[in-house]
Amino acid sequence: MTGAQPEPLTKPLLRALRGERRRRPPWWLMRQAGRYLPEYRALRAQARDFVDFCLNPALAAEATLQPVRRFGMDAAIIFADILLVPQALGQKLTFGDDGPRLQPLDETPGIQGLRLEGAMSHLDPVCETIRRSRAALPDETALIGFAGAPWTVATYMVEGGGSRDFGRVKSWAYRDPSGFQALIDLLTEATIAYLSAQISAGAEVVQLFDSWAGVLPEEGFERWVIAPTRRITAALSEYFPAIPIIGFPRGAGLLYERYAIETGVSAVSLDTVVPKGFARERLQSRLAVQGNLDPVLLITGGETLERAVIELRTALGGGPFVFNLGHGVLPQTPPENVAMLAQLLSKPLD
Amino acid sequence: MTGAQPEPLTKPLLRALRGERRRRPPWWLMRQAGRYLPEYRALRAQARDFVDFCLNPALAAEATLQPVRRFGMDAAIIFADILLVPQALGQKLTFGDDGPRLQPLDETPGIQGLRLEGAMSHLDPVCETIRRSRAALPDETALIGFAGAPWTVATYMVEGGGSRDFGRVKSWAYRDPSGFQALIDLLTEATIAYLSAQISAGAEVVQLFDSWAGVLPEEGFERWVIAPTRRITAALSEYFPAIPIIGFPRGAGLLYERYAIETGVSAVSLDTVVPKGFARERLQSRLAVQGNLDPVLLITGGETLERAVIELRTALGGGPFVFNLGHGVLPQTPPENVAMLAQLLSKPLD
Repeated sequence: MTGAQPEPLTKPLLRALRGERRRRPPWWLMRQAGRYLPEYRALRAQARDFVDFCLNPALAAEATLQPVRRFGMDAAIIFADILLVPQALGQKLTFGDDGPRLQPLDETPGIQGLRLEGAMSHLDPVCETIRRSRAALPDETALIGFAGAPWTVATYMVEGGGSRDFGRVKSWAYRDPSGFQALIDLLTEATIAYLSAQISAGAEVVQLFDSWAGVLPEEGFERWVIAPTRRITAALSEYFPAIPIIGFPRGAGLLYERYAIETGVSAVSLDTVVPKGFARERLQSRLAVQGNLDPVLLITGGETLERAVIELRTALGGGPFVFNLGHGVLPQTPPENVAMLAQLLSKPLD
Repeated sequence: MTGAQPEPLTKPLLRALRGERRRRPPWWLMRQAGRYLPEYRALRAQARDFVDFCLNPALAAEATLQPVRRFGMDAAIIFADILLVPQALGQKLTFGDDGPRLQPLDETPGIQGLRLEGAMSHLDPVCETIRRSRAALPDETALIGFAGAPWTVATYMVEGGGSRDFGRVKSWAYRDPSGFQALIDLLTEATIAYLSAQISAGAEVVQLFDSWAGVLPEEGFERWVIAPTRRITAALSEYFPAIPIIGFPRGAGLLYERYAIETGVSAVSLDTVVPKGFARERLQSRLAVQGNLDPVLLITGGETLERAVIELRTALGGGPFVFNLGHGVLPQTPPENVAMLAQLLSKPLD
């Protein structure tokens, strides 16, 4: 495996992720490409279903670029979906009106029907999206690749979709931890291969989304969140030492600190409810932090948004910091409020 | 307002909540009366809809007693629903297959259509449920009353039901904090009146369910979780100094400690993901703790359940502790696993 040449650290996002304090924090937004943008909705109508859209490099690259063109974020994140990996491994995936559906994986036969071999070729279009996006981005804008973290992807694979209680996946994990570990191991391998391919294609940063990290008790968090994340960061840091890895253990609460210390990520992304004082004192003292404006504030807009942005910059702007949301942009967000945010972030605080 | 006479502290639950360490921890389970019990499903079929069921003291008292009769928990919790309060205040409530629906409250006219006056008479049947349940319970079994905490009830009132992003309620709260405060204040008053009535009718402990405490950033948590809870505990402690108040700020994560210290609750209920070491060192050193077995373990059963129960008792049994789940019993729980839990909890650890 050969790495992309490390980019000289001229891009603001890369500098912040490497621990540099910036007077104007670099920014991007989770789910910055998506339904709240009219140009995205028009583009989306060109593909039959969501999976086709994600695997069409022309459309996916255009979706990747749209928000940067409109708002000038410091980074683009490739337009894709964390469930492309289970699909690549052989699980049947459909997207309906109520979100993604996978044919749920059973405890028996477990991972028998899944194949890592050949899976990466299914994901080639994502690498092509990366090449096209990278070529089109302004010089100062970084390109972020991503994947779901093994635990989160496993929850979708076993539940078949979203879940309220995670009864199926936790039952399996609790009853047969070594059988479940085989699924986590497979996903860990797949994630390393997938992110390596993304980096080789031109991703300059990668983010691991562990959206359901917050539903596991500590022992499970150690085993299925921290341990596989550490394996992924160890492998990627060996192959691509210059590429920062952002970890996002959404909802980790009291376990955020262990995640930040023990996983080897370069930066930690904070959900909406992580207290800013805690983030500054316990996390930012050790690594770059990213986050964590409540996405609802982009619906609210106005002075409320302005005040919250100043508070967040004041709290975390004294150290290495990437301005972002604590969760994805909501579909009902007025684009003009994102424009206002861009304006607010365009200057040093005073 | 005159208080019920305090019960002499002979009941194990009351002793633990007052800070006493018990060799065998008292136990009960959130949602211990409910769909996983065949006798509940038979009883439920006797009322047309769920609201009618909750407001029928004969049926609701029987539902309250069923799990205690079968498993011998140390406490019964009255069968009711947190959304009876908005209904009593004048908001239209229906229960469908997809959960509760309220006619969503709008920012304007806000609380204008709601009335505290007369609301308590709508809740009289709940007090009658309490009188009947109390009269039928064994001498050593405590009776728990409850209410939703103001923030959580407000989320349902504004969203109209469950929510993924809490966009409506947070938008209102962020954009017009003083208008939203009027709703929180109304619910705080209603909760004080409602819990006072429950205690006067015979509830020996009350629990405040703040199920959505975990979606608020720190400033909102202070304002809409901690502050109203403190007002409720201050009022109840004045009227009924002997009645313990359990607070359950589900998902509060890094803010659990502030909740435990600042709200004035007698005991704090821990969700599934609160680390046991943190609970022992930072919370149990100050007040009784309750929780926090993962409800999925009651689906798993077997040695996995047994091991988890021993671990939890070992971790928290050295101080004031009420054994419970970290969330409600799941509908797909086999009752025989609850029987196994009862057996495991029937003796001191060694």
